[in-house]
Amino acid sequence: MNARTDDWDIPAIVSGLQTLRVRSLENRQRESQPPRLPSRKVLSDIVEGLASALFPNRLGSGDLLPESVDYFVGHTLDTHLRQLQAAIRRELRFQAEQAGQEPEDCDTRAHALTRCFAHTLPRVRALLETDLEAAWRGDPAAGSVDEVLVCYPGIMAMICHRLAHELHRLGVPLIGRIIAEIAHSATGIDIHPGASIGGSFFIDHGTGVVIGETTVIGERVRLYQAVTLGAKRFPVDADGTLQKGHARHPIVEDDVVIYAGATILGRITIGKGTVIGGNVWLTRSVPPYSQISQAQVRNEEGSS
Amino acid sequence: MNARTDDWDIPAIVSGLQTLRVRSLENRQRESQPPRLPSRKVLSDIVEGLASALFPNRLGSGDLLPESVDYFVGHTLDTHLRQLQAAIRRELRFQAEQAGQEPEDCDTRAHALTRCFAHTLPRVRALLETDLEAAWRGDPAAGSVDEVLVCYPGIMAMICHRLAHELHRLGVPLIGRIIAEIAHSATGIDIHPGASIGGSFFIDHGTGVVIGETTVIGERVRLYQAVTLGAKRFPVDADGTLQKGHARHPIVEDDVVIYAGATILGRITIGKGTVIGGNVWLTRSVPPYSQISQAQVRNEEGSS
Amino acid sequence: MNARTDDWDIPAIVSGLQTLRVRSLENRQRESQPPRLPSRKVLSDIVEGLASALFPNRLGSGDLLPESVDYFVGHTLDTHLRQLQAAIRRELRFQAEQAGQEPEDCDTRAHALTRCFAHTLPRVRALLETDLEAAWRGDPAAGSVDEVLVCYPGIMAMICHRLAHELHRLGVPLIGRIIAEIAHSATGIDIHPGASIGGSFFIDHGTGVVIGETTVIGERVRLYQAVTLGAKRFPVDADGTLQKGHARHPIVEDDVVIYAGATILGRITIGKGTVIGGNVWLTRSVPPYSQISQAQVRNEEGSS
Amino acid sequence: MNARTDDWDIPAIVSGLQTLRVRSLENRQRESQPPRLPSRKVLSDIVEGLASALFPNRLGSGDLLPESVDYFVGHTLDTHLRQLQAAIRRELRFQAEQAGQEPEDCDTRAHALTRCFAHTLPRVRALLETDLEAAWRGDPAAGSVDEVLVCYPGIMAMICHRLAHELHRLGVPLIGRIIAEIAHSATGIDIHPGASIGGSFFIDHGTGVVIGETTVIGERVRLYQAVTLGAKRFPVDADGTLQKGHARHPIVEDDVVIYAGATILGRITIGKGTVIGGNVWLTRSVPPYSQISQAQVRNEEGSS
Amino acid sequence: MNARTDDWDIPAIVSGLQTLRVRSLENRQRESQPPRLPSRKVLSDIVEGLASALFPNRLGSGDLLPESVDYFVGHTLDTHLRQLQAAIRRELRFQAEQAGQEPEDCDTRAHALTRCFAHTLPRVRALLETDLEAAWRGDPAAGSVDEVLVCYPGIMAMICHRLAHELHRLGVPLIGRIIAEIAHSATGIDIHPGASIGGSFFIDHGTGVVIGETTVIGERVRLYQAVTLGAKRFPVDADGTLQKGHARHPIVEDDVVIYAGATILGRITIGKGTVIGGNVWLTRSVPPYSQISQAQVRNEEGSS
Amino acid sequence: MNARTDDWDIPAIVSGLQTLRVRSLENRQRESQPPRLPSRKVLSDIVEGLASALFPNRLGSGDLLPESVDYFVGHTLDTHLRQLQAAIRRELRFQAEQAGQEPEDCDTRAHALTRCFAHTLPRVRALLETDLEAAWRGDPAAGSVDEVLVCYPGIMAMICHRLAHELHRLGVPLIGRIIAEIAHSATGIDIHPGASIGGSFFIDHGTGVVIGETTVIGERVRLYQAVTLGAKRFPVDADGTLQKGHARHPIVEDDVVIYAGATILGRITIGKGTVIGGNVWLTRSVPPYSQISQAQVRNEEGSS
Repeated sequence: MNARTDDWDIPAIVSGLQTLRVRSLENRQRESQPPRLPSRKVLSDIVEGLASALFPNRLGSGDLLPESVDYFVGHTLDTHLRQLQAAIRRELRFQAEQAGQEPEDCDTRAHALTRCFAHTLPRVRALLETDLEAAWRGDPAAGSVDEVLVCYPGIMAMICHRLAHELHRLGVPLIGRIIAEIAHSATGIDIHPGASIGGSFFIDHGTGVVIGETTVIGERVRLYQAVTLGAKRFPVDADGTLQKGHARHPIVEDDVVIYAGATILGRITIGKGTVIGGNVWLTRSVPPYSQISQAQVRNEEGSS
Repeated sequence: MNARTDDWDIPAIVSGLQTLRVRSLENRQRESQPPRLPSRKVLSDIVEGLASALFPNRLGSGDLLPESVDYFVGHTLDTHLRQLQAAIRRELRFQAEQAGQEPEDCDTRAHALTRCFAHTLPRVRALLETDLEAAWRGDPAAGSVDEVLVCYPGIMAMICHRLAHELHRLGVPLIGRIIAEIAHSATGIDIHPGASIGGSFFIDHGTGVVIGETTVIGERVRLYQAVTLGAKRFPVDADGTLQKGHARHPIVEDDVVIYAGATILGRITIGKGTVIGGNVWLTRSVPPYSQISQAQVRNEEGSS
Repeated sequence: MNARTDDWDIPAIVSGLQTLRVRSLENRQRESQPPRLPSRKVLSDIVEGLASALFPNRLGSGDLLPESVDYFVGHTLDTHLRQLQAAIRRELRFQAEQAGQEPEDCDTRAHALTRCFAHTLPRVRALLETDLEAAWRGDPAAGSVDEVLVCYPGIMAMICHRLAHELHRLGVPLIGRIIAEIAHSATGIDIHPGASIGGSFFIDHGTGVVIGETTVIGERVRLYQAVTLGAKRFPVDADGTLQKGHARHPIVEDDVVIYAGATILGRITIGKGTVIGGNVWLTRSVPPYSQISQAQVRNEEGSS
Repeated sequence: MNARTDDWDIPAIVSGLQTLRVRSLENRQRESQPPRLPSRKVLSDIVEGLASALFPNRLGSGDLLPESVDYFVGHTLDTHLRQLQAAIRRELRFQAEQAGQEPEDCDTRAHALTRCFAHTLPRVRALLETDLEAAWRGDPAAGSVDEVLVCYPGIMAMICHRLAHELHRLGVPLIGRIIAEIAHSATGIDIHPGASIGGSFFIDHGTGVVIGETTVIGERVRLYQAVTLGAKRFPVDADGTLQKGHARHPIVEDDVVIYAGATILGRITIGKGTVIGGNVWLTRSVPPYSQISQAQVRNEEGSS
Repeated sequence: MNARTDDWDIPAIVSGLQTLRVRSLENRQRESQPPRLPSRKVLSDIVEGLASALFPNRLGSGDLLPESVDYFVGHTLDTHLRQLQAAIRRELRFQAEQAGQEPEDCDTRAHALTRCFAHTLPRVRALLETDLEAAWRGDPAAGSVDEVLVCYPGIMAMICHRLAHELHRLGVPLIGRIIAEIAHSATGIDIHPGASIGGSFFIDHGTGVVIGETTVIGERVRLYQAVTLGAKRFPVDADGTLQKGHARHPIVEDDVVIYAGATILGRITIGKGTVIGGNVWLTRSVPPYSQISQAQVRNEEGSS
Repeated sequence: MNARTDDWDIPAIVSGLQTLRVRSLENRQRESQPPRLPSRKVLSDIVEGLASALFPNRLGSGDLLPESVDYFVGHTLDTHLRQLQAAIRRELRFQAEQAGQEPEDCDTRAHALTRCFAHTLPRVRALLETDLEAAWRGDPAAGSVDEVLVCYPGIMAMICHRLAHELHRLGVPLIGRIIAEIAHSATGIDIHPGASIGGSFFIDHGTGVVIGETTVIGERVRLYQAVTLGAKRFPVDADGTLQKGHARHPIVEDDVVIYAGATILGRITIGKGTVIGGNVWLTRSVPPYSQISQAQVRNEEGSS
């Protein structure tokens, strides 16, 4: 390798990286290059497009005449469902490769899944309507429902989650996960697309909220920033491998309020109407209408 | 509905969404389509433009000759004040509609408000100068004031806040709020535009900080990540509706330091010179020069 | 100043801002305009480019044929190393000005540093491979290594950190810091580029994690959201100025697990194999294989 | 003026240009800055949008399902008619200023004109259909009607002209003219928007064609490159000023063919069915079914 | 149709346009929507990409190090051949529909054609090298070969033509034609992709040049602006339909020079070494080494 | 070469092209890669920027308040002069390489040339003002001076030419030539930057106009489309190489009018006040106030 002094010796680096790529494929017992995955940037556009089709006057083009709204919605759906169908096709091919199978009927199945997903959109919009109402009623700083829709990170996170959850249920979990991370990055709210969340759900501020894969949340639940609904421990197989996918996150019943910084871990049940205080650490079930608060802190007040 | 098998049945979905939009308008007793709101994307450009006018050499075009700086600043102001004026006009129309009034003189008032706002910019810049100095003095990892300006999320959040706060005071709170959420999304720092914050303010790291609408902060205050200055409870009206806008967040006097994860709730006063330890949960006032720290934790040390 | 009523009186504002700029330069004893700094936007492109060269099939163009991968990698490196070299040149000039020296040989040194940096890329890729494996093994929700690479904020943060750390070590800390803040903004994970982190490192969820400048982390360490590895106090000089750069953050030995919300402060050592429970507040060293958990919280269970 | 040697002395140049601008306003007896004109770039987008609404499958998004076409057309019209309305408002204000009048009802009139224009679109599309058919029948190199639509500069020029002509007739000639110049720049075909052109019109190759403001062209006329239909002389007023707007260009009756390079000048009539040969120079009327050809050229054949 | 007065009555226009689209499909005996065509914008990108792969230092990225050129070329080819393959697939499908056949093996055939085309690129580059040399030798205003490459419209037209001609020969004439029109629009030079042109070909200025589909041009031919190599008459079938595709344009032998504005029509032969004067109109063959010039013009000199 | 059947065999093509590049360098006796040339795209931006600084209200941002115009002009100049300086530096380096010299002082000389050029801008603007006036007075179809400025290709061509001519005179002819070709491509008007053109110059329609390098044009000259002011013959050296740069194009004195399609060749003089008719072919000088017209054409009028 006789690199000149005014270059960067790119061939050597390209070669070094190639060696690592080949080794990495071998480690994962892959014989050839992996199938492509849906792109995060494309999914970000899709989510933005679907959100503007759901709320065309607020999140779409701001200048729509009444006669134009349906054209906007129809055209926006057409454009973004087509992109989504391509993304789903990629995930189906990836799933086949992971399972060591030939990819079959990916085109047809991607179309059918996209169609199913499209028909959930009115239901998603109806649920989001209840979330908006809950935020407006639950936050004294909210000036209007419109402000909630265009400003609140909790609403942005729920738009993404309700879309991602439908995709997760339809069998394209990776796309759901990427959408969840788009919301996570923008809002600091990390909701796994597998989590099941009832209507009128409100997260205020939201930074640091974590809601795990198998969480189940009822109606009219309210959460504040930095709340964790997580797993307590991760069972392993006989050979030490993590068991994946079993129920390990809390069940939160209707009308529960959980204040900032509370950590709730494991497959426990928080009974209906319970209020969990800020910073509480909780790893066992509580009956309905409980009031859980933190141990007293020590205050060493100054005396100047 | 006789959809073909190779399409997504868009007309049915468009129709389903239209029904929901109409119902939603009815629920809010609106007879016609709502007035447009200022767009988040546009406000993001405006904030970036104003920041580059405030700090042209660091946040603006990096190649300005001395003879060019004022042209850059003047042109950048002109471009972004014009956009801001249009955004303010939208908010004024929205306010009128919310109040059930005819929008009057929105053009004239938007211009007057933009002009007032523009004249606050030198004061905003002077305040930010004290914030920069505070960060540089307060963080051993800061290599230079310039590094603080281009890197620190706390500074980015304060540029947005000081602009948003002026807009809030001038009577366009929704624009202020959207700007606050732009900062929140980028930094994880959530400062309501209503909060009043003195000079030489420094937030280190910042992720998870929440500062509520009616918070009052003095001079030379320092905060770390995940500090909450929040409300304790939300009084409701006789009919159960939240009372909006009353003072419900802490007053933090001069020279206070609040370490990471502390939660301070309610209209309490943190006396001058007080130091609040990490993770402290505090819901009552403390006198000047207090030292508040967390209760002792239990350590079960291993003994292998 | 006779401004017309239909303008914004821009000349007055430009003049007000100019006065402040001049005063600010004087305060910092600068005689002329400061040298330019590397731009955040450009560094963001560079990081994205380097990441796509490291993982061309997953983070680069998704449609590469086997015969095309090396062309993609080589061209992507060429483009982004050239940009990086320009950014490094700017930082070197800035360093000289800070030190009150004439900028010398900045072109040559920038090229040499870029070349050195380029040759670390295979090593960086190899380390990231261990991080990916650790995430895949450590999270029951992870469906595949590919999902980890395209979705997990912890991986995104480590790609940035491992690049930023090399640049920090080569003597361009400001570029390193800006890259760290790019990751911080996108993921809520704040790792100072000075921190030294071993292989197979995994951060789950990640929002609110802070890892300080002089932290040292061993192999196979796992962290959850909102963990702080911070400084306890900041020593000052005789004249009250902060001492910068001395070791003040924890040493975390191999195989340690630290659960969500734990705060670990000061130059203490967390012994090999220790598990730190959620929300723990820790300011002294613990021996290997310790199990540290939080004090018990008080639960006032409801009784409806 | 004490310019530094490392700058460009911008203030002096700005000042020099300002002096010229003021003098130019004075020369044209304008007291204040002129009203804005519609922007060429915006009009270019509008033309492209309208063309894609007229031919959605060929000039619009290439992937439309049958159920999506009308959504595409409706949304595209909505977007671009809104832009056109704003452009028309600008021209109306400019017209008022030119006429020394107050701009009145420009909003209302712009809307009414846009609405009228929109209703001409089906007629325009029907005419363009005949032009496409004429090109397909008239050129042995044309492989299909689709090829004609996506490739032929003559068709591109006619799409622009038929739109520009409607705008000209509705009283917004400046917008019409800018659209004509967009086509001229792209195709080399210069048709004044005032020209009246019947159906089934075909221009082959087209570069250098000029068709003047008061030209009248019948049905099924065919033109080749570099044909001029121009004015012979320009009458002047008593004071030497050009008389504007009177009929001064040819009338070309049905079924005429004019070969490349022919120049036809003045308010003459080319009778039905006439064929004009290449490079002919013609300044008087010819009866129907004439065959006009160039004078013989001298050929000095080589004999080496 | 009860349109409101503040809208444009879009549904009526959409409906009017739909009726015309349906009628147009019926007229062309198409039962369903036509297959998509390759997009002009995409082909414009492809041509630009291929040109930069052919001349990376002049038409590609201007900052390539020697070690980087091949990476640039390889990556640029990869990107644009992939786009070209997709465009070719579209044309093949369109051809099948035009022929009333089922589209078969379009994927495989598109790949094979793209591969064949790719292997012609070195030959195309070698031919263009002779064109550059001819321009440099033939124009006293040319300062260098580099100037010719980056400035001369004749070279730009030939880059497009030599690429388009290969595609025409491979059986994708529509793509070839669109590329020819891209050049025509940019340069005013209209060369049908079917034309066969030898090496060392030079067109100076070029505006208005037309070279027809079946033209054959030898080596070292030079042309000036506004030269037409066209067809004289278009034979029709018994039923009056144009006969398409037969040889109807001139054969121009080696070393011919044709000055500006000359018009040469029909399947005639211009013998080797002939010089055709400006504005000459020629419709019969001339032997080698002829000197053809225009008839004398009449000059009425003034006598003031 | 064992290419797979599903790729394009890129390595072989890359290698083929590399061989040709090397051979081409050898043919031109270049030992290393050529210096970079100014980019056409960048120069296109520069021209647009300078045009908007010259006519800020019409060609710049359309919404400038009186107080903002100078900021716009100053900032626009700053931005585009900086780009121009970089382009000039490239041309100077290229010139040195062409001359077989070391590039010396290119930075300093590029700055000095840019500064000189900048100071010609007021003069250029004043000349363009006379061109605008001439167009407005000379074309009965012109509705206003503003229409002329935003629509007329002749004006666009003259803005480019007057800028390019100053650059040509300052010794950066290649940049001048690229700018001339930008205008040529957009308007079909091909004016060599070396041509010297007096005030009040007007080209109507313009497609096909060619004005050669050593042309000299007086005041108040008017041209129509397809006029050529060209060279008659190109003298060669003893060794057959073209002599470059000597005077070979016409001198056109004041107040001359030249109608469409006229071809005027050689270093002849067209006397003051002469009128040249359409399609005239002229290769010898004419005295002042001549009236030159074409030979009579033959008309075979039909007689149906």
